Amino acid sequence: MSSHSGYRGKSLSFLQKNNLQVGDIVSVATDVDYSGMIMPRYEYSDDEHVVLKLKSGYNIGLEVDKIKKVKIESTVELKKETIQQPQTNPNLPKLLLVSTGGTIASKVDYRTGGVTPALTAAELNATVPELAEIANIDTEVLFSEYSENLLPEHWKKIAEKINSCVQSEYKGIIVAHGTDTMQYTAAALSFALVNIPIPIALVGSQRSSDRPSSDAALNLISAAKFLVECDTTGIYVVMHNTTSDDEVACHWGTRVRKNHTSKRNAFQTIGGLPAFIIKNDKIIKNQQFNYVRKREYVPKINFDTRVALVKYYPGLDSSIINYIIEAGYKAIIFEGTGLGHIGKTMYENVAKAKKKGLFMGMTSQCIDGMVCMTVYESGRDLLNLGIIPLANMIPETALVKAMWALGNSKNVQEMEVLMKENIASEFSD
Amino acid sequence: MSSHSGYRGKSLSFLQKNNLQVGDIVSVATDVDYSGMIMPRYEYSDDEHVVLKLKSGYNIGLEVDKIKKVKIESTVELKKETIQQPQTNPNLPKLLLVSTGGTIASKVDYRTGGVTPALTAAELNATVPELAEIANIDTEVLFSEYSENLLPEHWKKIAEKINSCVQSEYKGIIVAHGTDTMQYTAAALSFALVNIPIPIALVGSQRSSDRPSSDAALNLISAAKFLVECDTTGIYVVMHNTTSDDEVACHWGTRVRKNHTSKRNAFQTIGGLPAFIIKNDKIIKNQQFNYVRKREYVPKINFDTRVALVKYYPGLDSSIINYIIEAGYKAIIFEGTGLGHIGKTMYENVAKAKKKGLFMGMTSQCIDGMVCMTVYESGRDLLNLGIIPLANMIPETALVKAMWALGNSKNVQEMEVLMKENIASEFSD
Repeated sequence: MSSHSGYRGKSLSFLQKNNLQVGDIVSVATDVDYSGMIMPRYEYSDDEHVVLKLKSGYNIGLEVDKIKKVKIESTVELKKETIQQPQTNPNLPKLLLVSTGGTIASKVDYRTGGVTPALTAAELNATVPELAEIANIDTEVLFSEYSENLLPEHWKKIAEKINSCVQSEYKGIIVAHGTDTMQYTAAALSFALVNIPIPIALVGSQRSSDRPSSDAALNLISAAKFLVECDTTGIYVVMHNTTSDDEVACHWGTRVRKNHTSKRNAFQTIGGLPAFIIKNDKIIKNQQFNYVRKREYVPKINFDTRVALVKYYPGLDSSIINYIIEAGYKAIIFEGTGLGHIGKTMYENVAKAKKKGLFMGMTSQCIDGMVCMTVYESGRDLLNLGIIPLANMIPETALVKAMWALGNSKNVQEMEVLMKENIASEFSD
Repeated sequence: MSSHSGYRGKSLSFLQKNNLQVGDIVSVATDVDYSGMIMPRYEYSDDEHVVLKLKSGYNIGLEVDKIKKVKIESTVELKKETIQQPQTNPNLPKLLLVSTGGTIASKVDYRTGGVTPALTAAELNATVPELAEIANIDTEVLFSEYSENLLPEHWKKIAEKINSCVQSEYKGIIVAHGTDTMQYTAAALSFALVNIPIPIALVGSQRSSDRPSSDAALNLISAAKFLVECDTTGIYVVMHNTTSDDEVACHWGTRVRKNHTSKRNAFQTIGGLPAFIIKNDKIIKNQQFNYVRKREYVPKINFDTRVALVKYYPGLDSSIINYIIEAGYKAIIFEGTGLGHIGKTMYENVAKAKKKGLFMGMTSQCIDGMVCMTVYESGRDLLNLGIIPLANMIPETALVKAMWALGNSKNVQEMEVLMKENIASEFSD
């Protein structure tokens, strides 16, 4: 966070003129006198106010024009922390930790209570000393973004970074990532890097890693252990499997979903058990599915975002399909109801989209279970209109797959072939 | 199903000219000779073919122009079934069963294998003779639609029908409904008829009620029992709670979601236990939440569909917001990521929507858990842009509530007040 975070225009001038920065404790004289800490503001705030956190805990906005006098009581000390790199142990394997941002790479700013994506991969490594006993871990910051701000172009950069390390001495790669869109990135890497010969673990945390209650340490330690000890390949999400600190799940990248806003065990494998569970220092393989297939590794690292996700609901105006056609989209992934339905009011425009050559795939907003469009009239009508049923593919995975398939095909016909093929266990057996 | 279901133009003329109908067994001479049953076609099929189901089980499309000769082997007999109304028992309370369609009101057509919404409420009552021992049940068919085809105007008709019976002798009302959009209708009735003084049970089934494996009977019997014996009020979804036939759950109408495409226990209460469980003939109340509040019953039965649901994902083009503004929508419900976020690329157009006076509410695509927009920068930015956090309201419930709140308000400001108020336990305590 910058020393004037969020301030601009008039209020920024006021701070600069008075040599003030966010975090300073000040006394301010207006009609009433106040004492408190200068708080950061947000990008879309006005430029008329300075915000103080009072001792009571309340924040108050003071109009700059009405401030008669301001006095610094104490100022922020800028500590320079030196990060000590752990010593290399020649008997241990090497891993790479790539940081993209998110809570796992965040620090709580104890002055302001805010959370910012500030920790570097090196700091992260140093925060969890247990890692040095598992592997020699090199670190690299790719970007520092909360995952809600990551885009398909970031997926591409992460995939390219990983791909560049496939022939290296790294036994596996940890990707520190925000949890908000972690499942989208996991799916994207699963398709782009299908049949990758090393294991990749996406790791996040629901509480920032410098807080005592953080889940970051266990997730990181488990991921490192998993990559080093488990003789597997592919893309996994490694996160808490329970609300306590005793079990971690390794979810297959195309079958995982964030199903709770805040719980440590928010991530779940849809339609089955996680691929691996780490418990009591043991790694247990789930025998239900065999996700990994041995084929040649041919990375295809392109994404085309001309894919729309349309969640159907009663009252949805079918004009949305016209908008999608006119905006130049090439594909639609429907989140239909039940076994994969959308209402009759949509049919006419769906037929139009088919005529215009768009790919249309059907998933279910139920999230769990198979799409099956031959049971009811509605489903059969939609099949006849050219919608492709996508079995039990998770809607978000289907969307990412469509962006990937479109990005690596010459045309929609080629894309359709890829969409129907089971590339990275996105259809479970 | 009509006797020429799906046929039109040239193929319809062919059937009529030859006195043929769907279900007839025929021999057809073309270049090759075929024998089989005439199958129905779907609305969007061409008019050039007649479809036969061969004895092998395969369907074949025969071009009408190439048929040299056709001969009827046997024709469909139209049985007229007489429905015997159960006798009235003066010692039992009265219930009303309103049928809207869906699988629970469906028959499998054994000739064609298709499922159609054909059973009347009276037939439904007669199919499950146990009902006559619980209550005297009057029946009424409101419409016969699969629920994927129901619209907010249907919600209004169901609500008006129920409202017209509130002062009657009925102890409660069963609404037979397709499962695809049952949760939307349950939410709509919960808002429109809040504080209704009688209990209402929406009942569906995942397998049609004339099949041995159907869950319809247990769901219907349980709903009738629940309405008669349980001294409660409000809108409930009454469906299997396990995959076996021993436990039924009564879910509160604003807290329920269909979470599996095909399982009998697809419906779940989000963020808690069902309001009631019926097991071993006993009704057990969940003490966790007290959904019902005693207030005056003032039905508000309007819905305004100018509400868009926008599910955020990486790569979503923010122009969708411009389209929503230009198309005249009054509100947007976001399905954000994690604690309630959308990416920075959306901010500019979100600010534009706010300026245009649209209501914007935030829910989470995680489905379970609280939206909390004060933890991270992104959340605080979005609060400053005017997005209203909707706590743990289920996204689909939030969408329905917004349509209801808009439909019963003079303007968006009034709507916003309703959106923040806990009307029908859509925010759980």
